[in-house]
Amino acid sequence: MNDKKMLIGMQIGNGYGAQATSWMADNVDVRNYTNLDAHVRYAQAAERGKFQFLFLPDFLAQSQKTDHDAPLLTMDPAITMAVMARETTKIGFAATASTTFNEPYNLARTFKTLDVISGGRIGWNAVTTSDPASAANFGAQVADRDTRYERAHEVVQIVQALWGSWQEDAWVADKDRKIFADRSRIRPVNLQGRHVASRGPLEIPPSRQGQPVIFQAGGSPHSLALTGRFANAVIGATFTIEDSRRQRANVRRAAEQAGRNPDEIKFFAGIMPTIAPTKREALDRRGQFVEPGIRQRVRYLGTMLGLGLTADDLDRPLAEAELAAAQANPADPRSGTALQIAREGWSVRDILYHGIIDYHPSPIGPAEVTADHMQEWFEAGACDGFWLSPDVYEDGIDTFVDQVVPLLQQRGLFHTDYEGDTLRDHLGVDYQYGANH
Amino acid sequence: MNDKKMLIGMQIGNGYGAQATSWMADNVDVRNYTNLDAHVRYAQAAERGKFQFLFLPDFLAQSQKTDHDAPLLTMDPAITMAVMARETTKIGFAATASTTFNEPYNLARTFKTLDVISGGRIGWNAVTTSDPASAANFGAQVADRDTRYERAHEVVQIVQALWGSWQEDAWVADKDRKIFADRSRIRPVNLQGRHVASRGPLEIPPSRQGQPVIFQAGGSPHSLALTGRFANAVIGATFTIEDSRRQRANVRRAAEQAGRNPDEIKFFAGIMPTIAPTKREALDRRGQFVEPGIRQRVRYLGTMLGLGLTADDLDRPLAEAELAAAQANPADPRSGTALQIAREGWSVRDILYHGIIDYHPSPIGPAEVTADHMQEWFEAGACDGFWLSPDVYEDGIDTFVDQVVPLLQQRGLFHTDYEGDTLRDHLGVDYQYGANH
Repeated sequence: MNDKKMLIGMQIGNGYGAQATSWMADNVDVRNYTNLDAHVRYAQAAERGKFQFLFLPDFLAQSQKTDHDAPLLTMDPAITMAVMARETTKIGFAATASTTFNEPYNLARTFKTLDVISGGRIGWNAVTTSDPASAANFGAQVADRDTRYERAHEVVQIVQALWGSWQEDAWVADKDRKIFADRSRIRPVNLQGRHVASRGPLEIPPSRQGQPVIFQAGGSPHSLALTGRFANAVIGATFTIEDSRRQRANVRRAAEQAGRNPDEIKFFAGIMPTIAPTKREALDRRGQFVEPGIRQRVRYLGTMLGLGLTADDLDRPLAEAELAAAQANPADPRSGTALQIAREGWSVRDILYHGIIDYHPSPIGPAEVTADHMQEWFEAGACDGFWLSPDVYEDGIDTFVDQVVPLLQQRGLFHTDYEGDTLRDHLGVDYQYGANH
Repeated sequence: MNDKKMLIGMQIGNGYGAQATSWMADNVDVRNYTNLDAHVRYAQAAERGKFQFLFLPDFLAQSQKTDHDAPLLTMDPAITMAVMARETTKIGFAATASTTFNEPYNLARTFKTLDVISGGRIGWNAVTTSDPASAANFGAQVADRDTRYERAHEVVQIVQALWGSWQEDAWVADKDRKIFADRSRIRPVNLQGRHVASRGPLEIPPSRQGQPVIFQAGGSPHSLALTGRFANAVIGATFTIEDSRRQRANVRRAAEQAGRNPDEIKFFAGIMPTIAPTKREALDRRGQFVEPGIRQRVRYLGTMLGLGLTADDLDRPLAEAELAAAQANPADPRSGTALQIAREGWSVRDILYHGIIDYHPSPIGPAEVTADHMQEWFEAGACDGFWLSPDVYEDGIDTFVDQVVPLLQQRGLFHTDYEGDTLRDHLGVDYQYGANH
């Protein structure tokens, strides 16, 4: 047994599950998109499982891609976090918010308010926005990458400075001396960048963890520089242990290059399990979400393997000659897994039911399959933890909590209770107040 | 008895009360600024009183003016509204948000989300920002009034168009047909103004009342044009019945000039009562909030009356000669009331304890004093309702609900239960979806 435990965060989007078609599942209320009772129930289930945090993605434009997909997002992450935070006591929350189309003063205010009212349980995934449809919603065009990241550095720096502008000892709150707060310790920041500026101060006292944790996503050189400077958690996009180890090493090196302790950044690998008593049941459960778009997927599977596949091929396994000719397409990192599954002799339909075109590795089968996957990746140093995308929130969270979490705990891989009360406690990163030094 | 009933909204700011010094009251927890449990308790008390809405002011800069004042605002109105809405079922909420320093897409998203999750109980007080410290928090300078209002018109128009961009019949939610939403009925708005623009659509379905109600504040010609075009409720700043009638008439005329039914705009007059069993007790209750700044106030009272008053004069009434020489300063509309109270023979301190320098008319005394004030104003056509600023929320709301509301109900002036479920129901204004026509 290793002393170091893995961390678990869970993605929560639209109230249905990680699949755009999760809303179709029999046990899902199709109106959950607008009913935060569901989000609260899922947050409480995740907290029962001692997950470190929930992660709310965001996107500033229409996310529904076809009539049979649901939007992948909650209507407004800040509002959803506020509600979930009120109805939980321990679990943390991190949400994406764009540095490109928000002003630092507004970002600082919303996230610090959430951090204060939640008792220090909030993180901010500070991303840049390069999507043209999102830009158009702000009457803008997409700026080049250098400009977007230059602005991102300015925004995060100003936000953190605003967070620290109400000094930790400023709130006197003394009725006898008739002093509410000492204004000499609530000071302007007077920061002027090339893209954004703010004078401050921000009229919000420290939270229980000081201020929100900075999250990052993406592994480009631009993103790594931002990560190294500011982040305590990185949401990775990885499909193999080797790739994940490399990405994690890059993140840690970026922290060192910024003069920080690399252990202050936790790297998370995605996982999108489907859990059922048998492999066949798990494949069929996953398959219901694959079916609506299966005609497109079968053609794309052909591209991954260098074969010309159509819907006519769905109900047969690949022939010996096809398997001999097949090559994993290096343009898609999921191709190796697809080829490996094809070689196991599954029908083309079942290959697709393995979730091989989904955006995270997908352990499919009894709970042990998922626990084994997590153990292998974690012990190989591929990640500090996982961000989990359940197929259907309504029962998928409880199944993971009741079946996978105990296995991980028995194996000494996951904690049995929260070590503290704040998101920084949960992640094992230091208290911070104000700007990075 | 008149069939028409008055409406009551209540201002809720920092968790203490309407006075910057309300936090000092014995029964107030000084930590309420960061503890939304207090706001929830106050919202529930107001709902027990069948108030139509709570009103959350906003200001984009430091609002604490001296060390002995508290900030007058909640940390972030959108977050506070989300929490209060979850823990109430009927009462409406309206919050100020700047059209000057927010993007229409972000405003549309936050307010419509709140409207959906609250079951149609949200309003947006769409203001312009002319405060230099607020502008500096966005690295900006204050634009001229024409420019600010031109932008405001564009912002409200785009926000309303985005609200209507998910058409009312778009959410099919049919598992059998595998259709979540019909994207042909979720359409871009493609609005391009001089200051702001947005393509849309906004991926949020209608709320129970369609979309949020627009509030306005201010009576300048620029403000009236915005009110006439968009608003269903106006928060007035009035000190006399005559002035309030005039302002209300202006608002109604502005609606007519915009081609709308003037009854679709409700005009609210402020009221800042202090209620206690006797006049003396009420004066002493109010006095505790006046005392911390009384040396400044006595000098200002002198300016209001054309007399040179100092702290040495606090404990005596004005002399006959002073009263004969005193003149109400026409530069301050509160001066007439101050002079009238001075003539009643109160000491200078007690004149100030009447709240004559506060920013709303202040009935001081037993509950009947407040009920009589409201009846007189309402029956004179000075307003459609009141926005109440209790001196201390902790007991002031309950006192109003238990003592003033029953008097108003007995007199046939205030409803005895909610007529419906949405803010539009409460205000008696029409369902609206999408932009004004």
